[in-house]
Amino acid sequence: MVMHVTVSIAIAGASGYAGGEVARLLLGHPDVTLGALTAHANAGQRVGAHLPHLRALADRTFDPTSAEVLAGHDVVVLALPHGASGALAAELEARGEDVLVLDCGADHRLVDPAAWRAFYGSEHAGTWTYGLPELLHAGEHVATAQRAELAAARRVAVPGCNVTAVTLGLAPGIAAGVVEPTDVVAVLANGYSGAGKAAKTHLLASEALGSAVPYAVGGTHRHIPEIQQNLRAAGAADVTISFTPTLVPMARGILATATARLAPGVDAAAVRQAWERAYDGEPFVHLLPDGQWPTTAATLGANTALVQVAVDAAAGRVVTVTAIDNLVKGTAGAAVQSMNLALGLPEHTGLPTEGVAP
Amino acid sequence: MVMHVTVSIAIAGASGYAGGEVARLLLGHPDVTLGALTAHANAGQRVGAHLPHLRALADRTFDPTSAEVLAGHDVVVLALPHGASGALAAELEARGEDVLVLDCGADHRLVDPAAWRAFYGSEHAGTWTYGLPELLHAGEHVATAQRAELAAARRVAVPGCNVTAVTLGLAPGIAAGVVEPTDVVAVLANGYSGAGKAAKTHLLASEALGSAVPYAVGGTHRHIPEIQQNLRAAGAADVTISFTPTLVPMARGILATATARLAPGVDAAAVRQAWERAYDGEPFVHLLPDGQWPTTAATLGANTALVQVAVDAAAGRVVTVTAIDNLVKGTAGAAVQSMNLALGLPEHTGLPTEGVAP
Amino acid sequence: MVMHVTVSIAIAGASGYAGGEVARLLLGHPDVTLGALTAHANAGQRVGAHLPHLRALADRTFDPTSAEVLAGHDVVVLALPHGASGALAAELEARGEDVLVLDCGADHRLVDPAAWRAFYGSEHAGTWTYGLPELLHAGEHVATAQRAELAAARRVAVPGCNVTAVTLGLAPGIAAGVVEPTDVVAVLANGYSGAGKAAKTHLLASEALGSAVPYAVGGTHRHIPEIQQNLRAAGAADVTISFTPTLVPMARGILATATARLAPGVDAAAVRQAWERAYDGEPFVHLLPDGQWPTTAATLGANTALVQVAVDAAAGRVVTVTAIDNLVKGTAGAAVQSMNLALGLPEHTGLPTEGVAP
Amino acid sequence: MVMHVTVSIAIAGASGYAGGEVARLLLGHPDVTLGALTAHANAGQRVGAHLPHLRALADRTFDPTSAEVLAGHDVVVLALPHGASGALAAELEARGEDVLVLDCGADHRLVDPAAWRAFYGSEHAGTWTYGLPELLHAGEHVATAQRAELAAARRVAVPGCNVTAVTLGLAPGIAAGVVEPTDVVAVLANGYSGAGKAAKTHLLASEALGSAVPYAVGGTHRHIPEIQQNLRAAGAADVTISFTPTLVPMARGILATATARLAPGVDAAAVRQAWERAYDGEPFVHLLPDGQWPTTAATLGANTALVQVAVDAAAGRVVTVTAIDNLVKGTAGAAVQSMNLALGLPEHTGLPTEGVAP
Repeated sequence: MVMHVTVSIAIAGASGYAGGEVARLLLGHPDVTLGALTAHANAGQRVGAHLPHLRALADRTFDPTSAEVLAGHDVVVLALPHGASGALAAELEARGEDVLVLDCGADHRLVDPAAWRAFYGSEHAGTWTYGLPELLHAGEHVATAQRAELAAARRVAVPGCNVTAVTLGLAPGIAAGVVEPTDVVAVLANGYSGAGKAAKTHLLASEALGSAVPYAVGGTHRHIPEIQQNLRAAGAADVTISFTPTLVPMARGILATATARLAPGVDAAAVRQAWERAYDGEPFVHLLPDGQWPTTAATLGANTALVQVAVDAAAGRVVTVTAIDNLVKGTAGAAVQSMNLALGLPEHTGLPTEGVAP
Repeated sequence: MVMHVTVSIAIAGASGYAGGEVARLLLGHPDVTLGALTAHANAGQRVGAHLPHLRALADRTFDPTSAEVLAGHDVVVLALPHGASGALAAELEARGEDVLVLDCGADHRLVDPAAWRAFYGSEHAGTWTYGLPELLHAGEHVATAQRAELAAARRVAVPGCNVTAVTLGLAPGIAAGVVEPTDVVAVLANGYSGAGKAAKTHLLASEALGSAVPYAVGGTHRHIPEIQQNLRAAGAADVTISFTPTLVPMARGILATATARLAPGVDAAAVRQAWERAYDGEPFVHLLPDGQWPTTAATLGANTALVQVAVDAAAGRVVTVTAIDNLVKGTAGAAVQSMNLALGLPEHTGLPTEGVAP
Repeated sequence: MVMHVTVSIAIAGASGYAGGEVARLLLGHPDVTLGALTAHANAGQRVGAHLPHLRALADRTFDPTSAEVLAGHDVVVLALPHGASGALAAELEARGEDVLVLDCGADHRLVDPAAWRAFYGSEHAGTWTYGLPELLHAGEHVATAQRAELAAARRVAVPGCNVTAVTLGLAPGIAAGVVEPTDVVAVLANGYSGAGKAAKTHLLASEALGSAVPYAVGGTHRHIPEIQQNLRAAGAADVTISFTPTLVPMARGILATATARLAPGVDAAAVRQAWERAYDGEPFVHLLPDGQWPTTAATLGANTALVQVAVDAAAGRVVTVTAIDNLVKGTAGAAVQSMNLALGLPEHTGLPTEGVAP
Repeated sequence: MVMHVTVSIAIAGASGYAGGEVARLLLGHPDVTLGALTAHANAGQRVGAHLPHLRALADRTFDPTSAEVLAGHDVVVLALPHGASGALAAELEARGEDVLVLDCGADHRLVDPAAWRAFYGSEHAGTWTYGLPELLHAGEHVATAQRAELAAARRVAVPGCNVTAVTLGLAPGIAAGVVEPTDVVAVLANGYSGAGKAAKTHLLASEALGSAVPYAVGGTHRHIPEIQQNLRAAGAADVTISFTPTLVPMARGILATATARLAPGVDAAAVRQAWERAYDGEPFVHLLPDGQWPTTAATLGANTALVQVAVDAAAGRVVTVTAIDNLVKGTAGAAVQSMNLALGLPEHTGLPTEGVAP
């Protein structure tokens, strides 16, 4: 006899891009049932009017976002603007709900309250277990420690999408000591869905088509302390990073070019070995064959990260390029992957590994 | 005890866009095993170099396309330039293989050899069972006859992508007699993948980005006789159609605007009822709620067609708009759906119904 | 001795796409001086913050939109939401200003107040001279009558962008009697700038990229009566048109596929001759050589229209395809061209004829 | 009496993107006449079939590319694959032509033959005057020395497009000594036209749309020695640079993010002052107001470069972002600007300063 237990899941903020993507992935997950789908301004409206691509949900209706609506589920995924998730999580806590909560927002990612205050300008809501299973810890060749933490977690902070791309690109070199963490430079090409669904003039198609534009230049982007935290976890004593994202005309995708200084005396073979060891056997993170470079299109809709690394001896730098789908491996896929670990399910359950290309 | 029988499938032309998409879908199909993946110019090369989005196949190698390589599979899917599939199918036939063959090319779609000669300028390779399960036959309210034919088929001609979009848009009205088939006008916005992967100057990104351009204007497009054939199947005595596809800057997707004259004495309620009856219960074809119009993005990667219909009383015309992913419902998804029927599997097996959006 | 007189021009609504494009063109016009640039929400802000492409204006400031600010110029161009221009024009009138006013909005385009009320739902502000110099009048082989009207005009209604594309495509056939005006079907691929600069969710880059979507389907688009008016001017007794615009992922451009039934007894040579005669000698409207089809990219930034025509004998229809830049020939270029005529300047003054491609 | 002397110009390689753009700009230049337009594979064909946006040239025909055809013009612009221009220039030389030659290719840019051999693998064709008028020389606050060289030149090497963007971004800081040249990192978002018009699979629209992909990663790109050469000219003793271009889905445009380490003891005010002094008064290079970041769309079709600079104190780096149109300021505009200087014409003659946006 086979008994199939399904887990009930509610999504807060389901009409946005992140929440909608969580819903899309969970519709393909064999072990879950989608419970409440909540929204703010769109509460009471048909799901099909806002997420017309999700046929199975078309005739459902968004509930208002509240602790009452979210209560009673086994899992709650929060896909809300930063600042909103902390309060809601506290309400669920106060109700005594035994619930696994995954926060796709920034509120619970940082360990250091001072870093939170410096970059977000408010009080920190507390630190949750970090939802990047592939995060290398100092001394590790492959990621096991973070997975162990997630297996025991009831509160998970899903990483920022840019952070995931830069971390996956550089952490193997940091952990292996083959690159220096003190003068990292990362420049990213970003699809527009990372900027969310709120109607703003600079996000209009007319502005975006045929154009590239940077934002949050010069050390102001809120993902900076999170990248530093991850690279310190991988073994860096100190991390400095120049980080510049640029919007380019695509709906999804991050292509992160992240470079770090080659450590003294390290050769190209040692560099390649560091990345090979880190990602050999990873189900979602793939080091490409030497000479093949990642494209974001190859990750579209999939929970994969494609990574390549090269040594520029003349410049004294290691150059890594990482492609992810910002809404999948960068957000919703990371949430589901972490959820699987926290629920004791096989890590890859329900997560697409094949991109939709061309 | 559960015994799970898997079907072995070979794909000829697997390095192209259509063949690659068949492979993508079959990787998600629980009842099949991917056998030989063949290519012409790319034979001997790594699959990962050409289809980097298909991680599960990355380390496999393309075999050369030949009857020998394709032999011994339960199913063969042909994704070849038109003209090539006929000869290869004949070779398989000659070997006495008991194999289900699905041809994504045009060679076996048309019933009328004269129409083939007029539009393709060569001898006809013969007619196979037409792989559009939702094709309405005269007198039907819902599509059952075509499904019955496919259930018995061993040779399936997968429809042209534009044909599928226009047929799904108009056939309900033809079958119900609420529109006239004698002055159909269809104009399509087409993504570039429909033009294939061969390197041609007019298909370059530099030419495509920021531009729209028609092609095969004025009654020359080879999909015209196939549309006529389908609308005749739905009950039209005679069909005339002005058909104009236009390339627009997207990789995938067809948005087909197809209009036909309103039949005398028919009102808007009767029109809507014709489409509602036709698609009520269809797993992949969805009539949207009144007033909501299809977007191609909502079908990306999915085997769905989104349809809407409106009556323009002043113009005396019914306007239908249909969105599909040309590589899925327009090609590879239709192949898999037909294969499921021919193999006696549930029709929807392995076929995504949720698009990847935004 | 040469005396160079310059004309002072104010633009109302200069921070929007249409107004900004008028400014761009006028910066290249040798006989004008840009006076007040007004805006509503953006009044008081730097021009460079909103129109960063217009370097010559970067350090100027938007004035508020009012009759006081606009007074005292030789020419006023109104680039305002429909409904707003009528009142402002009346205020200028009341001040007794002897000024040439060109309205890029819809308020003064229609001759028939009933058509205005039916499609716009408000009282009609009155009819101005129609700013399409190439508009053929009944019995004309080449457009002279409309130019004569514009030469005498002090109030000009600039045509709608879609209207210009469809009219230029079909009017030669109507005027020559080679097509029938009673069952016209037009489907357009439209760039997003035609939808304006207001921040709306469905106009976001994330929604637009990789997608095509129709709007105002089924006889509701406000450009329909204006097309009918133009084709009647060209000699049609009665005009019916099915009109469907579709948004595709480009910032600018309209590709209008417009078809009409071939008149009885007319052959392909007669059809081609009608279009050749109409556009032979036109400075901005170009009939392409037989077999070459227009691309919108070829018109980008230019005041040109590229037109092609073909006969589909089997369908009994003439198919025309017209490409324009919606912001130039579709709006701002038409305004400048009409202004040139009204001021007695050479019609082509300051108007680019070379597109920016690829 | 006014006598207007016009200069006759031939373009070799006029059917490509660079050559076509030279033609477009020269059609707007008041002092030139377009002579021979030559092509290789397209010789004998209508210009309008390949450059449909250039209406004034539509009915002309491409001549074959040869010294005979190019002879007898005052100016020859070479827009050929690298390697081809050197031989052709030598032939013109051998004919004793007194002609101004501008080479849009790479053959004559580098001063150091060893650098040429290392990156291009062939013998160096010799060094010509470098066609970047804004190139700062050591000790200069504003660029005058390079302009003087160009005023005396008869052979001009037009810079590489990526090189121009990175040089304009960083040179002011190098010349002023406020940044260190020894660990420069540059990552660029590039439009596809920079890759040329040759039909290659990886340049297809289907591959490009919705994707970002790096190329020539890890110190192999041929523009690297040229950037080093320019920064040395500006005063750097030694230059090391990590340089990564990435293709993003736009037809034109380069957005170059170039960072360098802040020199010891330098503050943000000194940084800003260096860039302000360098570009104050420049007709084409614009430092944006503090806090406003460049968009490539704002430079489309114009000979402008938009530059911004910020200090990231935590990272110890200066970050510059530069936007140009790769075909204008990056290629054809630089050629015309240099030509103007070499002919003694006002530098800005015929060069657009207003972009086409949105």
